[in-house]
Amino acid sequence: MNNDLYIYNTLSRKKELFVPINPNHAGMYVCGPTVYGDPHLGHARPAITFDLVFRYLQHLGYKVRYVRNITDVGHLESDADEGEDKIAKKARLEELEPMEVVQYFSDRYHEFMGRLNVLKPSIEPRASGHLIEQIAMISKLVEAGIAYESNGSVYFDVEKYNQTKKYGILSGRVLEDLLANTRDLEGQDEKRNSFDFALWKKAQPEHIMRWPSAWSEGFPGWHLECSAMSTKYLGETFDIHGGGMDLMFPHHEAEIAQSTACNHKPPVKYWMHNNMITINGQKMGKSLGNFITLEEFFKGSHPALTQAYSPMTIRFFILQAHYRSQLDFGNEALQAAQKGFDKLMKAMLTIQKIAPQSTSTADIASLEKLCYEALNDDFNSPILIANLFEAVRIVNSAYDGKEKLTAEDISQLKKLFSTFAIEILGLLPEVDPAEGGKVVEGLMKLILEIRANARANKDWATSDRIREELAAVNISVKDTKDGATWSID
Amino acid sequence: MNNDLYIYNTLSRKKELFVPINPNHAGMYVCGPTVYGDPHLGHARPAITFDLVFRYLQHLGYKVRYVRNITDVGHLESDADEGEDKIAKKARLEELEPMEVVQYFSDRYHEFMGRLNVLKPSIEPRASGHLIEQIAMISKLVEAGIAYESNGSVYFDVEKYNQTKKYGILSGRVLEDLLANTRDLEGQDEKRNSFDFALWKKAQPEHIMRWPSAWSEGFPGWHLECSAMSTKYLGETFDIHGGGMDLMFPHHEAEIAQSTACNHKPPVKYWMHNNMITINGQKMGKSLGNFITLEEFFKGSHPALTQAYSPMTIRFFILQAHYRSQLDFGNEALQAAQKGFDKLMKAMLTIQKIAPQSTSTADIASLEKLCYEALNDDFNSPILIANLFEAVRIVNSAYDGKEKLTAEDISQLKKLFSTFAIEILGLLPEVDPAEGGKVVEGLMKLILEIRANARANKDWATSDRIREELAAVNISVKDTKDGATWSID
Repeated sequence: MNNDLYIYNTLSRKKELFVPINPNHAGMYVCGPTVYGDPHLGHARPAITFDLVFRYLQHLGYKVRYVRNITDVGHLESDADEGEDKIAKKARLEELEPMEVVQYFSDRYHEFMGRLNVLKPSIEPRASGHLIEQIAMISKLVEAGIAYESNGSVYFDVEKYNQTKKYGILSGRVLEDLLANTRDLEGQDEKRNSFDFALWKKAQPEHIMRWPSAWSEGFPGWHLECSAMSTKYLGETFDIHGGGMDLMFPHHEAEIAQSTACNHKPPVKYWMHNNMITINGQKMGKSLGNFITLEEFFKGSHPALTQAYSPMTIRFFILQAHYRSQLDFGNEALQAAQKGFDKLMKAMLTIQKIAPQSTSTADIASLEKLCYEALNDDFNSPILIANLFEAVRIVNSAYDGKEKLTAEDISQLKKLFSTFAIEILGLLPEVDPAEGGKVVEGLMKLILEIRANARANKDWATSDRIREELAAVNISVKDTKDGATWSID
Repeated sequence: MNNDLYIYNTLSRKKELFVPINPNHAGMYVCGPTVYGDPHLGHARPAITFDLVFRYLQHLGYKVRYVRNITDVGHLESDADEGEDKIAKKARLEELEPMEVVQYFSDRYHEFMGRLNVLKPSIEPRASGHLIEQIAMISKLVEAGIAYESNGSVYFDVEKYNQTKKYGILSGRVLEDLLANTRDLEGQDEKRNSFDFALWKKAQPEHIMRWPSAWSEGFPGWHLECSAMSTKYLGETFDIHGGGMDLMFPHHEAEIAQSTACNHKPPVKYWMHNNMITINGQKMGKSLGNFITLEEFFKGSHPALTQAYSPMTIRFFILQAHYRSQLDFGNEALQAAQKGFDKLMKAMLTIQKIAPQSTSTADIASLEKLCYEALNDDFNSPILIANLFEAVRIVNSAYDGKEKLTAEDISQLKKLFSTFAIEILGLLPEVDPAEGGKVVEGLMKLILEIRANARANKDWATSDRIREELAAVNISVKDTKDGATWSID
């Protein structure tokens, strides 16, 4: 089978054949969360997008080293290198040590990504754990004259970089335009130009997260960590860099500039960006009152939600859109996704019950080919899902006797579901333990009623049969003056 | 209620009243895993021991900062500062980047601790993430003349430390004896004395995990990380330091010496050590063929095990022994623990069914007092569990009509179980989803049989009732030529 994989490269604005730097190996870096708040949709979408990439590359036989960082220091409130560190601020408000905030929200992030069945990356480095690597990179840039110290902080000299390299190749922004749009911002006088970005920030006296350096006691700039950690674990040039579209500028642009100035080669071969999410057509934001955490989605505990949505509903919904399309979360669309997901999962049970025929009316091999074609076309999960629904249709028709499937067809269909739905899309049948309990309770209510009738009618055969069968599943019944009670032993 | 907590302090060899350094706050540091292999009983016991301490301190109202580290660099194969780094060796054998090994086994550790219902610590720092802090500490010790450089490595001068402070206060080892037992070991000539320990090791050319320092490109000694990280997150003197008894010497002894020499004060107020585990009376070891991972326990997939043991069975078994006693894992003892745990959990269901009486034959308040007394006596979990079994006896007797409980008694008993069994001991009823499925299948088999009989006897009332009740729990039945099939919608 032709399994040429095409990836849309933000750098070239077109789909390119994926050719890894080292045959059979793929290196991928994805910007992970800044851990100062509870996980939400803005975390779920990139995690699921690049989980699909990770899973499919592995399926194709690549040995993948997937690095996804945790930002636990240096991410300031404003992109203009101003404002408080997001984690330090949360720590101040909660009266905690910043690393307690980091631990709590990292754990929450892992918990919710696990519920979304997002695989763990191969390495999950933390910014605060790579100070030496970041300081070494800054020193190199200062020595090369592409970064300058100012009042204990160090900034990347964008204009100087732009003299020999081109700044803005990823986002398409042009330095002259950036310059024209410059406003004088308070406290920015440390910088030569407002578009210069911080590599190192001198810590204010009250700042807890601080480390010694040649320039000051301070902390690294946010953009720097990704360059330092991706270089350390994936090399000076690696295959794929992913992240949300909102990170393209300035974050990824800064990464390219830093790494190129430092290592004299482009850091990344394929840049991939997932598009943004909206809620009922609006950008998600705390001020808009539509900021919904994943926990609120799973519990249905936000006024904008008419019901709870399970992790798999959210995952399926995200995968039903192509990662480069905008995705709007609304109750109706989510309910439709829930139905679709249930239908898909149900077909995987129905297929177990189909009796094989000697002749066939279906062409499963062609369907499988279409599934691969969808994935090879820049991970087109909605097309893949449409093909899986064609498989669902075939299964249901065969179960109703309207199509004929051979034993070979059935086995191919099972493989199709397990490969594409479970292994690659990462969808899993959901078992709600509380639901299971409710079912058992409902069934036991019915059985005890039948038993009471049987005993009233002196139908000892039925009554004995019930006792026997209940004992087989370790349920014992006790007769009390208020009726029969039961327990699982 | 008098809730004076007494803790056995390894330092004084006696139980001491717990008086925290800062009122209402408790700081605790526990040595976590070196992440180069799958989690096993040697990980489970300290994790559960200090989970109990963490839970009880929180229950008493302390704001606890619990720091448990991950050792991801510097732990060599031999305590004599020789041999390969454990993680680097695993990485070499698996052809992985060391941090991939670290990530994989950290994730496995977290997964299995989660299944054992071990709470996450407040901060989980990694050794490799605190190079700067470790290097700063070494510099301080070198400047103070208590550490010396030798061939690019730096060693702690134990004899010099012993001139002004006493080395060996925790383990009771005497320097003169250590000196007498010294053998000349190959490659140890870098050290002035064989009992000196490494603070910094110069990296061999093939060593991947290396960082720059004033002495060499190298990596920190294992003992150092705990001193550096506990000081950073808990201060120069903190309340409780825990770990396995095997860490008392040289690891904890080295921590005390380093920190005291650096900060001129004792680092820890209360040292706590859990005792060791054995398997069928033998020390657990790979060479003895009795090295059993937690996964093997949970699956029963080791030749030494006659069956699988659930996470709660293992947790309950560990808590049934006091943490300072040796604990032997054998099949019979584990099966007894499983029965005991089931009995306890069952009583918590039985209590729901007891009809309150107007008079009482039980004294629950006294029982509660005994539970607190057990915990306050150095976390005596076996005595606590014995008291909970007295509560189980009362519940079962009341259910059988042999004791009388008022509504108030019943409410107190419920609180007793939820406080001591669930909240403090961290025991949880176990729901096996597969078991749940088996129960539903068994019940449905019975119901469809009854339905078939009813239909054969033209008993439409029963048949209708069954359809109705099944619909109420979303089960639909389909009649086929091979009999009725059912599915949950």
